[in-house]
Amino acid sequence: MPGKLIVFEGVEGSGKSTQLVKLQQWLQAHESFQKLQAMETIPALVTTREPGGTALGQSLRTLLLNHQPEVALGARAELLLYAADRAQHLEEVIRPALQAGSWVLCDRFIDSTVAYQGYGRGLSLSLIEQLNAIATEGLAGDLTFWLQLEAAQGLTRSRQRGQLDRMEQTSLAFHQQVQQGFETLAEGHPERIVPINAAQSEEAVAQAIQAVMEQRLQTWYRQYLTAY
Amino acid sequence: MPGKLIVFEGVEGSGKSTQLVKLQQWLQAHESFQKLQAMETIPALVTTREPGGTALGQSLRTLLLNHQPEVALGARAELLLYAADRAQHLEEVIRPALQAGSWVLCDRFIDSTVAYQGYGRGLSLSLIEQLNAIATEGLAGDLTFWLQLEAAQGLTRSRQRGQLDRMEQTSLAFHQQVQQGFETLAEGHPERIVPINAAQSEEAVAQAIQAVMEQRLQTWYRQYLTAY
Repeated sequence: MPGKLIVFEGVEGSGKSTQLVKLQQWLQAHESFQKLQAMETIPALVTTREPGGTALGQSLRTLLLNHQPEVALGARAELLLYAADRAQHLEEVIRPALQAGSWVLCDRFIDSTVAYQGYGRGLSLSLIEQLNAIATEGLAGDLTFWLQLEAAQGLTRSRQRGQLDRMEQTSLAFHQQVQQGFETLAEGHPERIVPINAAQSEEAVAQAIQAVMEQRLQTWYRQYLTAY
Repeated sequence: MPGKLIVFEGVEGSGKSTQLVKLQQWLQAHESFQKLQAMETIPALVTTREPGGTALGQSLRTLLLNHQPEVALGARAELLLYAADRAQHLEEVIRPALQAGSWVLCDRFIDSTVAYQGYGRGLSLSLIEQLNAIATEGLAGDLTFWLQLEAAQGLTRSRQRGQLDRMEQTSLAFHQQVQQGFETLAEGHPERIVPINAAQSEEAVAQAIQAVMEQRLQTWYRQYLTAY
């Protein structure tokens, strides 16, 4: 069975990282998933993130989120750094895992670039699509959970969590544009992106994700039985 | 008078950095250049390089030339990092200097990416042209000195100089492909790229460069007088 790429997207504070871990635990304990694993079709569950899923990516993540040079990081340079991180992440982590049949749970992927750099910073969307295509060689997620949350609410949550990184310090208006970007993406790709109401309690969000995952598991399991 | 971008290109050990400094000194002492400066049309001579012409670029240069992770740096990631370095370099250093009327002497620019990543590593040339265009927004050098030297000779010189960086450690075959790339570029852009025989003594190379520069100075001076 070919691997699956499951992505979590959303504004800061929408709970991506928390929900990714919860889904990982739920999957590992789930009967259908264990059945698939027992058939030796899924060697492992891999969790990763962008930016920062590789050694190179870690260095770039530091540059991108914490670096505060006297002269600001240009929007094009930022976009190209995210693309470099993604290209290395694909080559070193995601593609080998998928080829081995693993399921990959990834915190942020191509949609974040469209939302943050395209809708947020106003860079050309066709330029971003070009760069995403270069970095991924056309690979998109099999399933993307978009944790839908008002930008203001996400920022409040981030602030409660402690220090803000460079991206979180940007204005509310910026984050509202990002939110608009995710909305447009979800409308344009309903086959791939599933919106989840992230204003609910952590447990309610996890259950909403599990309900979607439950259905997909059955679909993918049936597809597997039919195909092999 | 709009600024001028003068670029030095060539394989490792071809003497780019040395010749750049020599040209800088020669220009500053040259009557025609001083005349132009006296007319307050050239505020300064700026020397810079790629990768590494900015604070961000310094970090990237370290990543690119010295970083030796367990897993190799992917060819696409490398290409995108060079593009990010270039985009920031353009925005932070080159474009502001040219807009202020300065002359910029730059060690490596777009042609190096075509030669090293395109001809050397075999990445798509159209992809590289796309990325160069994204990073520079279409800006090419006004004059490019290509220090032409057999790859083997350049590598011997680099080795004599001491420790080799990641790029210099690559095989001779790779550097021959790079050399071929520069040749093809020079044939395709004779209006912009001037080949200089770099197998001569340092002084003879400097004189060859000065002879070309002398002519350009007069041309640019005449253009300036006509235009203003």
